[in-house]
Amino acid sequence: MEKPRELNAKKEDFSKWYLQILEKAELVEDRYNVKGFNILRPWLMEITDKIYGIWEKELKNKGHKKVLFPTIIPEENFEVEKEHVEGFAPEVFWIDRAGNKKLERKLALRPTSETSFYSIYPFWIRSYLDLPLKLYQSCSVFRYETKATKPLIRTREFLWIEAHNAFATEKEALNQVKEDMEITKKVYHKLGIPFLFFKRPEWDKFKGSVFTFAADTILPDRKRLQLPSTHYLGQNFSKPFNIKFVDENEKENFVYQTCYGPPISRTVATIISLHSDDFGLILPFFLSPIQIIIIPILKKGKENEILKYCEEVKKILQDYRVEIDKRDKSAGSKFYEWELKGVPARIEIGERELEKKEICLFKRDKREKVFIKMEELIEKIKELEKEIEENLKERANKFFEKAISEADTKEELERKTNFGFVKIPFCSRDAEGERCAAELKDICEIAGTLYPEEEKPKNKKCVVCGKEAKVYVYACKSY
Amino acid sequence: MEKPRELNAKKEDFSKWYLQILEKAELVEDRYNVKGFNILRPWLMEITDKIYGIWEKELKNKGHKKVLFPTIIPEENFEVEKEHVEGFAPEVFWIDRAGNKKLERKLALRPTSETSFYSIYPFWIRSYLDLPLKLYQSCSVFRYETKATKPLIRTREFLWIEAHNAFATEKEALNQVKEDMEITKKVYHKLGIPFLFFKRPEWDKFKGSVFTFAADTILPDRKRLQLPSTHYLGQNFSKPFNIKFVDENEKENFVYQTCYGPPISRTVATIISLHSDDFGLILPFFLSPIQIIIIPILKKGKENEILKYCEEVKKILQDYRVEIDKRDKSAGSKFYEWELKGVPARIEIGERELEKKEICLFKRDKREKVFIKMEELIEKIKELEKEIEENLKERANKFFEKAISEADTKEELERKTNFGFVKIPFCSRDAEGERCAAELKDICEIAGTLYPEEEKPKNKKCVVCGKEAKVYVYACKSY
Repeated sequence: MEKPRELNAKKEDFSKWYLQILEKAELVEDRYNVKGFNILRPWLMEITDKIYGIWEKELKNKGHKKVLFPTIIPEENFEVEKEHVEGFAPEVFWIDRAGNKKLERKLALRPTSETSFYSIYPFWIRSYLDLPLKLYQSCSVFRYETKATKPLIRTREFLWIEAHNAFATEKEALNQVKEDMEITKKVYHKLGIPFLFFKRPEWDKFKGSVFTFAADTILPDRKRLQLPSTHYLGQNFSKPFNIKFVDENEKENFVYQTCYGPPISRTVATIISLHSDDFGLILPFFLSPIQIIIIPILKKGKENEILKYCEEVKKILQDYRVEIDKRDKSAGSKFYEWELKGVPARIEIGERELEKKEICLFKRDKREKVFIKMEELIEKIKELEKEIEENLKERANKFFEKAISEADTKEELERKTNFGFVKIPFCSRDAEGERCAAELKDICEIAGTLYPEEEKPKNKKCVVCGKEAKVYVYACKSY
Repeated sequence: MEKPRELNAKKEDFSKWYLQILEKAELVEDRYNVKGFNILRPWLMEITDKIYGIWEKELKNKGHKKVLFPTIIPEENFEVEKEHVEGFAPEVFWIDRAGNKKLERKLALRPTSETSFYSIYPFWIRSYLDLPLKLYQSCSVFRYETKATKPLIRTREFLWIEAHNAFATEKEALNQVKEDMEITKKVYHKLGIPFLFFKRPEWDKFKGSVFTFAADTILPDRKRLQLPSTHYLGQNFSKPFNIKFVDENEKENFVYQTCYGPPISRTVATIISLHSDDFGLILPFFLSPIQIIIIPILKKGKENEILKYCEEVKKILQDYRVEIDKRDKSAGSKFYEWELKGVPARIEIGERELEKKEICLFKRDKREKVFIKMEELIEKIKELEKEIEENLKERANKFFEKAISEADTKEELERKTNFGFVKIPFCSRDAEGERCAAELKDICEIAGTLYPEEEKPKNKKCVVCGKEAKVYVYACKSY
């Protein structure tokens, strides 16, 4: 079958291909008249809701509860934690008027909500009986990005979840980091997204945190995309926000905190980027708004019979999200459209299928047609459901494995940074390593050290300064 | 059983009672440090999500598709429709800076999204084949309210759905108004919320619309609360926004439009206000985050046996959202808490129940205890599920019926406006009626004429000007 006219080859120019698939598959509308703000179209919106659902279920299973805080944060909340405000200040959108009235104090559009959640936690946390407190919200946040924007990947408004947790002890807080990683693993395993989990170097942590941990993946252009990050905040926020509790011995203590930020928009972007080919998106059954599309191939004089047969097939498959595409369009243009949108199973029914009591099943992942007897239909669809999930995972994992390499010298690193992550011996992930990272800034960034396992280099030298390497870090080009 | 200490009588002071229940049942946090912005707490958030779910399902069933537009709208979009911008300008929050940079053009926080949706519709609507276009989003909107704020009822940020529809003909657009009313009816019937559907008088319609239709209810303080409104926009927006389509005869036409605004926050407020008593909230099974709460009444030496029995009961009821409250608190304080939160069924299990192989079921709506044999358990719970829904509806309807009266003179009207809706003969709902409405402004507002049935007055005089009454309108005190 010929290549659709308007989609570029993904391998040749990922950026171009990406914008094209967003447009042609009617996923994102990029023509809104404010830079960096996009519109999520119905097909993408349904996928987005499903991903929210998967993540929220995991969070709830681990005892998190859902809340919703205001979209705005007053300036004085922001200023409570000094590093935090300095880190975010350049990116904050400010509201200073309502109607014709100048507001008494400026309001920020939340870039992240530590400073609104934590301003309220002293009301909700009094005693050890109130702990742990594990709350999250699903919302959009706003950052005035100065880097080039790209729909779903880097925008000035994006969708995420933010979980804000408080604990009686440091140990429980550090365990939460592990739990967040477990959730990340479980969700991304289901979605077929490979990643590495890093502890970020000191110079790249979340402003206000003690440590930042993050899951990073590699997109087809071999650039790293940061996915969920988890921050161990220690008592950095609980002290200035005065979040204290009375313990079992009636002693007052500040809580230990973590926060976790699953990025919904970026997860959708990753699915689109990884699970797709030059014909469009490929969705696993559980994510696809329509799982099976039935396309009648009408033959003059047999229209009613063929349509009736389509309805019968639809009925047999009623446990699935199945639809018959009866629109007045050519079968070819329907094939093209549903392939673009990634519907995992297409059933074609024409005169031949009607006569033989068969259907023709097109498997989106392999772009393969098979003919199936009616009595085997459900079984074969069930098989395909599994097959597609496994295939997508396998393809993504294969790609990801190839995107990880190693280098022992700066020259070797330079040759390899266009291919994904490069594991290198490095002097330090603490503040003193920043100078070496800065020297690499035209070549790559340092994602961090693997978490939790940290293999220590033996008799290796930092690829930049040549001093003894204390850690292995992963370097990469980055979004 | 004694009255809980901290909840005022609802009948005596609804306003006070309302704020108390929000606080004591941990529904809304009202201490955020910006006026008019609240925090939705976990119990309320779950109810809110369920109501979103119910409404979105109905919209999807009627062919609406979900999208998400940016939270911000650039100033120039606003200015396209003159009446609209004038109507909303005093309430708009404006963003004019990002970081330290003054933005080239101001951005509004959406107070409603006609002007963002319709700026994009010309890209999506080209031919009659693209119509009808029925899209909605679930989001929060922002209005700088100058009236007194009240959590969930009048706030500066609130949750709603907004549907924005475009049609080839006026007839289809007007049918959409009826469909919106059907959806409103279906949802509110399920939720047990009574309402009247009005056509608003000319002076109280949505700015930019041809007509506004709205469902209004009456809260326990006998004030009207506006619930969903539907606006017939005609071509008032399609012309300035240039939303045209080519029809079957290759002629270009402007589309006809409607929009529909189901208010999620206010719907939650109405449920709390109507379905409750002086002991707290009363939720139907389908809305309650926990449907059945099991409370062990532990007896020394029998703790394990009683807890084991609780687990057995929980297992039998596994098709429900059921939990055992094992917290280290007195049974009485648990009763108090779950009654406040409105859990429809409470099961108490102590030594007596263990011995008799019974359970004690407390029905939240009637505050009635019954003893039930294990073998009848599921059946009795199913009965209660129906009972509670019917009871809540019956109570709400009874109240609502009493809140509607009639008056033929201004004096009679004055006596009755403290009791809800008063049906009065009125000169006109068109512009010329505004003067009479203004004369009543210290007494009441005019909600409008009933829609779609409009009973015409015969030989009646307008209660204000004494001219012949052309319509019956409903007058009321109002939020």
